[in-house]
Amino acid sequence: MTRLNSPLILDSLWYGAHVATMINGHYNVIKDAAIGVLGGRIAWLGKACDLPVYQTTSEHDLGGGWITPGLIDSHTHLVFGGNRAGEFEQRLNGISYQEIAKQGGGIASSVRSTREASEADLVASARRRLIHLMNDGVTTVEIKSGYGLSLESELKMLRVATALSNDLAVTIKRTCLAAHAMPPEFDDKDAYIDFLCDTVLPKVAMLGMADAVDAFCEGIAFSTAQVQRYFEKAQALGLDIKIHAEQLSSLGGTRMAASYKALSADHIEFIEEADVIAMKESGTVAVLLPGAFYTLKETQRPPIDLLRLHQVPMAIATDSNPGTSPALSLRLMMNMGCTLFGLTPEETLAGTTIYAAKALGISESHGTLEVGKVADFVCWDVESPGELSYWLGGQLMKQRVQHGEISK
Amino acid sequence: MTRLNSPLILDSLWYGAHVATMINGHYNVIKDAAIGVLGGRIAWLGKACDLPVYQTTSEHDLGGGWITPGLIDSHTHLVFGGNRAGEFEQRLNGISYQEIAKQGGGIASSVRSTREASEADLVASARRRLIHLMNDGVTTVEIKSGYGLSLESELKMLRVATALSNDLAVTIKRTCLAAHAMPPEFDDKDAYIDFLCDTVLPKVAMLGMADAVDAFCEGIAFSTAQVQRYFEKAQALGLDIKIHAEQLSSLGGTRMAASYKALSADHIEFIEEADVIAMKESGTVAVLLPGAFYTLKETQRPPIDLLRLHQVPMAIATDSNPGTSPALSLRLMMNMGCTLFGLTPEETLAGTTIYAAKALGISESHGTLEVGKVADFVCWDVESPGELSYWLGGQLMKQRVQHGEISK
Ligand SMILES: [Zn+2]
Ligand SMILES: [Zn+2]
Repeated sequence: MTRLNSPLILDSLWYGAHVATMINGHYNVIKDAAIGVLGGRIAWLGKACDLPVYQTTSEHDLGGGWITPGLIDSHTHLVFGGNRAGEFEQRLNGISYQEIAKQGGGIASSVRSTREASEADLVASARRRLIHLMNDGVTTVEIKSGYGLSLESELKMLRVATALSNDLAVTIKRTCLAAHAMPPEFDDKDAYIDFLCDTVLPKVAMLGMADAVDAFCEGIAFSTAQVQRYFEKAQALGLDIKIHAEQLSSLGGTRMAASYKALSADHIEFIEEADVIAMKESGTVAVLLPGAFYTLKETQRPPIDLLRLHQVPMAIATDSNPGTSPALSLRLMMNMGCTLFGLTPEETLAGTTIYAAKALGISESHGTLEVGKVADFVCWDVESPGELSYWLGGQLMKQRVQHGEISK
Repeated sequence: MTRLNSPLILDSLWYGAHVATMINGHYNVIKDAAIGVLGGRIAWLGKACDLPVYQTTSEHDLGGGWITPGLIDSHTHLVFGGNRAGEFEQRLNGISYQEIAKQGGGIASSVRSTREASEADLVASARRRLIHLMNDGVTTVEIKSGYGLSLESELKMLRVATALSNDLAVTIKRTCLAAHAMPPEFDDKDAYIDFLCDTVLPKVAMLGMADAVDAFCEGIAFSTAQVQRYFEKAQALGLDIKIHAEQLSSLGGTRMAASYKALSADHIEFIEEADVIAMKESGTVAVLLPGAFYTLKETQRPPIDLLRLHQVPMAIATDSNPGTSPALSLRLMMNMGCTLFGLTPEETLAGTTIYAAKALGISESHGTLEVGKVADFVCWDVESPGELSYWLGGQLMKQRVQHGEISK
């Protein structure tokens, strides 16, 4: 209750649009809404006609459309040297994966380019990709390392991820994915995991360079036992846990990660009901990556019905990376979540707001529009929030507000 | 040869980028190129270092990247009332097609909304969609009628298509698709075709409202014999011929259309080798529509290898429409052409330039960069032309030039 004669003090007021708050993962619509911002947080939210007496120097009529929480891309590999368009073109011209690998292509090529690139070049190229995501409505993005695979180059990638938020209105969460692939210097996977546990993770933790760790648990990468040793160390160092698991086969990585209260298990096309139940119990978010599914022409869809049945929260992310998902639009991933995985538009919006925040461990402050949360929101040129998933391409964003400030 | 002391006179000169001319459907690269424009046409094209003495008042350093011909979207249904995001959302929430049809959904809903909409409203909504396509590199777009299905409302759609080029820097080709579906006023398909032949086509031709006609030849629409009667009339009226055929089944529509020297046969997932040979002989372009294939979750791919074998030119278009392809990006369709149909990035770029021009009957003036052609080109923020097909989403366009003028 505001006391009479005591006006609501605001830095800025936003009105002239409807709001989908996404509280509890539903649209939870407020028609003809107003949002009052103070100190970068939401200070008032409701129907414009219910606004109390207020005082502000900055009023914004959005002129129609819908406001949603700023989109959160909870899984990206946005920092890398070079790109693999040449390889994409070679494959379509009939050159085999084997031949490309023999030429040093695939992830090895990204590792080489990333190691060779200067920090400034990595910032410049990732910055361009990040701006694409931001122009499409993203206000928070997770960025993983994992193309360095040496102490110095993994730290370099994490420094680049940090530097990106210096001059851009975006929140960045950094994840150390040193257990992404085998570096050329090592023959033995266990020896590399030892090196990560003994040298890389302690240094990353000591420097405060990452919010979480991630690992690729798959036949072509690391075994469940190897990833478990890495998680054990990460947990001891106080880092949050994420996993790439069950993308191409079922190795039990998801269940193992859940036993470490992982924030998220990502891809998970091949999880089974027991995995889903484990995720539910540990509060682990299912991060679905339809861009990689699409690019790799996978056929095994993640078990959406089981995830719904057990009420495991689902996020949708770009997996933006040069090999398997060269994605520059989170909204396109929302369409693919609907078209390829059968999610509803409300689920895909929840998957890029409230549950994406949960996948990054920032639910307390991000992911929904409610009083006290960070004032990150986007106004879209649409007549219904479902249009965000419906249109294929296009630039639907009218206005982007990050920490209460206009950033487009 | 320019004579000494007689400088090349230009309206504008563009340099600082590489060019993919797309002559003969190949990149045909000119590194470090320059393009001279005079009277809206290309007056000079070559390596910048080979430029003769010239004179111009307008010089543009593009500062890197690649120039391609302006993209041509050769198949759209860009003018319509309403949208079907609500229906998209209902379907994903488990409401059956039958239930949606009973509620008046599907194409019937677009026909109703388009008939009810004012001309100004149709211009406004199509204009927004057209700007999305333009911002993604499109300089020429084909627009079909076909949500009117009465004389007045089909003419209204074609007037709207015409009006769109009044204030936008884009070339529009108009196609009368009155044989798209059955209007509610008719029970009998033959009677509706009679009406089109006796009343609609003559009026459209007399008013010069369309460059071509199109028909939907399919079990759920019109038979090959019905479409043939419609083509017979169109041909007599001097209109070019296009067809939606063999999308869901094989009815022989493509072969029949080829016998009328159709400019294009579109969709054609179910064509067979005899159809391909007929297309080759008639010079008919195969217009592939991966956005509809994707949205409808089709499984039968168009026979790319047969089309290549018989050297039938392939175009790629958005099919932008509210039901089966709500597409606002032609570049995304290029990615889908590669990922879903196995085309090469060079083929998809040819399919949105030289062969798209052929599908619209404007090859003489559009579709490649060469002296004498209209100066429609785009400079992209990419390091190779293959990147246009590689990235999923994003806004890669740096500069758009239509008729020799900057339009973005
Ligand atoms: Zn990933
Ligand atoms: Zn169509």
